[in-house]
Amino acid sequence: MVAAGDPESFFATSPALRDASAVAANLQEFVACNSHVSSEGGGRRRIVCVTSGGTTVPLEQRCVRYIDNFSSGHRGAASTEYFLKAGYAVIFVHRRGSCQPFSRFLPDDSFLQFFDVTTDLKVQVVESQATVVKKAIGDYRKAIEGGSLLKLPFTTIFEYLQLLKMVATSMSSVGLHGMFYLAAAVSDFYVPWDSMAKHKIQSAGGPLDMKLSQVPKMLSVLRNQWAPLAFCISFKLETDSDILVQKAEMALNKYRMNVVVANLLATYKEEVVIISNGKSNTIRRCNKDEDLEEHIIKLLEKSHSKYIYSSTEGRNKNDYGKIIPLGIKSLA
Amino acid sequence: MVAAGDPESFFATSPALRDASAVAANLQEFVACNSHVSSEGGGRRRIVCVTSGGTTVPLEQRCVRYIDNFSSGHRGAASTEYFLKAGYAVIFVHRRGSCQPFSRFLPDDSFLQFFDVTTDLKVQVVESQATVVKKAIGDYRKAIEGGSLLKLPFTTIFEYLQLLKMVATSMSSVGLHGMFYLAAAVSDFYVPWDSMAKHKIQSAGGPLDMKLSQVPKMLSVLRNQWAPLAFCISFKLETDSDILVQKAEMALNKYRMNVVVANLLATYKEEVVIISNGKSNTIRRCNKDEDLEEHIIKLLEKSHSKYIYSSTEGRNKNDYGKIIPLGIKSLA
Repeated sequence: MVAAGDPESFFATSPALRDASAVAANLQEFVACNSHVSSEGGGRRRIVCVTSGGTTVPLEQRCVRYIDNFSSGHRGAASTEYFLKAGYAVIFVHRRGSCQPFSRFLPDDSFLQFFDVTTDLKVQVVESQATVVKKAIGDYRKAIEGGSLLKLPFTTIFEYLQLLKMVATSMSSVGLHGMFYLAAAVSDFYVPWDSMAKHKIQSAGGPLDMKLSQVPKMLSVLRNQWAPLAFCISFKLETDSDILVQKAEMALNKYRMNVVVANLLATYKEEVVIISNGKSNTIRRCNKDEDLEEHIIKLLEKSHSKYIYSSTEGRNKNDYGKIIPLGIKSLA
Repeated sequence: MVAAGDPESFFATSPALRDASAVAANLQEFVACNSHVSSEGGGRRRIVCVTSGGTTVPLEQRCVRYIDNFSSGHRGAASTEYFLKAGYAVIFVHRRGSCQPFSRFLPDDSFLQFFDVTTDLKVQVVESQATVVKKAIGDYRKAIEGGSLLKLPFTTIFEYLQLLKMVATSMSSVGLHGMFYLAAAVSDFYVPWDSMAKHKIQSAGGPLDMKLSQVPKMLSVLRNQWAPLAFCISFKLETDSDILVQKAEMALNKYRMNVVVANLLATYKEEVVIISNGKSNTIRRCNKDEDLEEHIIKLLEKSHSKYIYSSTEGRNKNDYGKIIPLGIKSLA
């Protein structure tokens, strides 16, 4: 097996993130404010970084063509809503244009069919949709005004990994109370910036032979260097059910994740397998109105509590989120 | 130079378009209704097919990864608005999720920041945006209710080319009164469906070596077989100004386009070069509030009139759109 690229050289050769200093300042403020807030259970408020949507891999420096990863961002957006409901502060690192929390029920492209102009020239929501829209706007406003949601957008793999590094290093101060919920569909292959065509690749030259390098496996770096105390959940999406669980277990061990959520492209809205510590739980949706994410986040919140509790046992007993009574049904 | 693939084998091996028969029925009805309507100038209403947004090239049959072409779809959406204003019926063949006519001024991802819930629990548009939203909704409703706008979405290169073929053959009945305004960013390279990996390509195998075939040049087929009488405009986007005009002129001659609109990635919102019949006109935007598309469509409408006029001279003089007085400033 050929080794994946080296993280340091990946960052050294990536194009710099735009507005990096403004992003860093926002992050610092968000983490500082939220880590001083008490949760409803009396402990410290926890912070989760939710990544969502697919990353792109530009094929040209002045980019016309790129490789993209399928992902609507629905899972990340829905999960963000349930994390907020569970009392977490959420850093939502998302692909530009992907599904957003509280607007996943709203039409994505028929916005104009959703509204009406009244005879007295007021814009209003068509009656049939009013309840959904009101709830969405209300919940969104509450999260933004309460300072518990920070949205950071990315498009390319270069932007995504730079953002992830910034978020992780900012969150290292919250230690065990931090969680990474890595639902983004991250490219495995890329073209290093310095070996990329400067201009649009011309089609007159016949078939295209493209050599792509492996993206360095940043899960190891996240776990070992950036945020060693955080509770880490990664996702595994496959199309072939024969290799899914095996690949998820490999990821759990290789990158020392706390949990891996495994899903198949064909059924990812109906079913996931939650793999943790050698055990696995299958969660299945009973009906279409139900969000699978509600169950996933409930399980993860409990596992995170247990993780904080077991890691702080014998230390400062007040330094964890909610107290987990003995015998509670948890993941492991 | 290696020849591009063969159109027939491209279609024979493409996955079938979903709902193809419903799309065909919609198209037939749209073309029939609109080709019997008189334009404001007294002639027959013209129909334009506007293509917009980028096509994707799946890399796996159960698609997780794909190559995409940069395109917001803004040009196609804006042009559709001006074509409708100029009296054309528009078939808007667009990438799913790309910019839509009449909603390009609306926020794409901050929908929720745009609306407010009043104290009596009504949803309303925040004051500052009310004028824009009202105009957008009004214009959109008018186009839809007037039956002059048909929207057909695509994602992959397979869907796009099948749709283009269906639209072109439906529009062949309107002859000279048809126009193709091919603003979509169409992939040059693709992986033929039958040689595509069935499952997600695994990253453990090291760097990826990808061989892509050339997409058949469908402009020739459109011009020669599908809609030989239509007025055809293609677009050329480059990143290198040194080769732009030369490549646009080549396309004009090679594919027998009536007009080629040439633009550079860096300046496509500010400036285009309209190339027709060996002559070129540069159109530049004077200020940011102006739409370059307004000028492009004005020019094209005149050229189309002239084209109909010159092609029908000596034939049935009533069979064209607007009468072009001699000496009018036109493209050629």
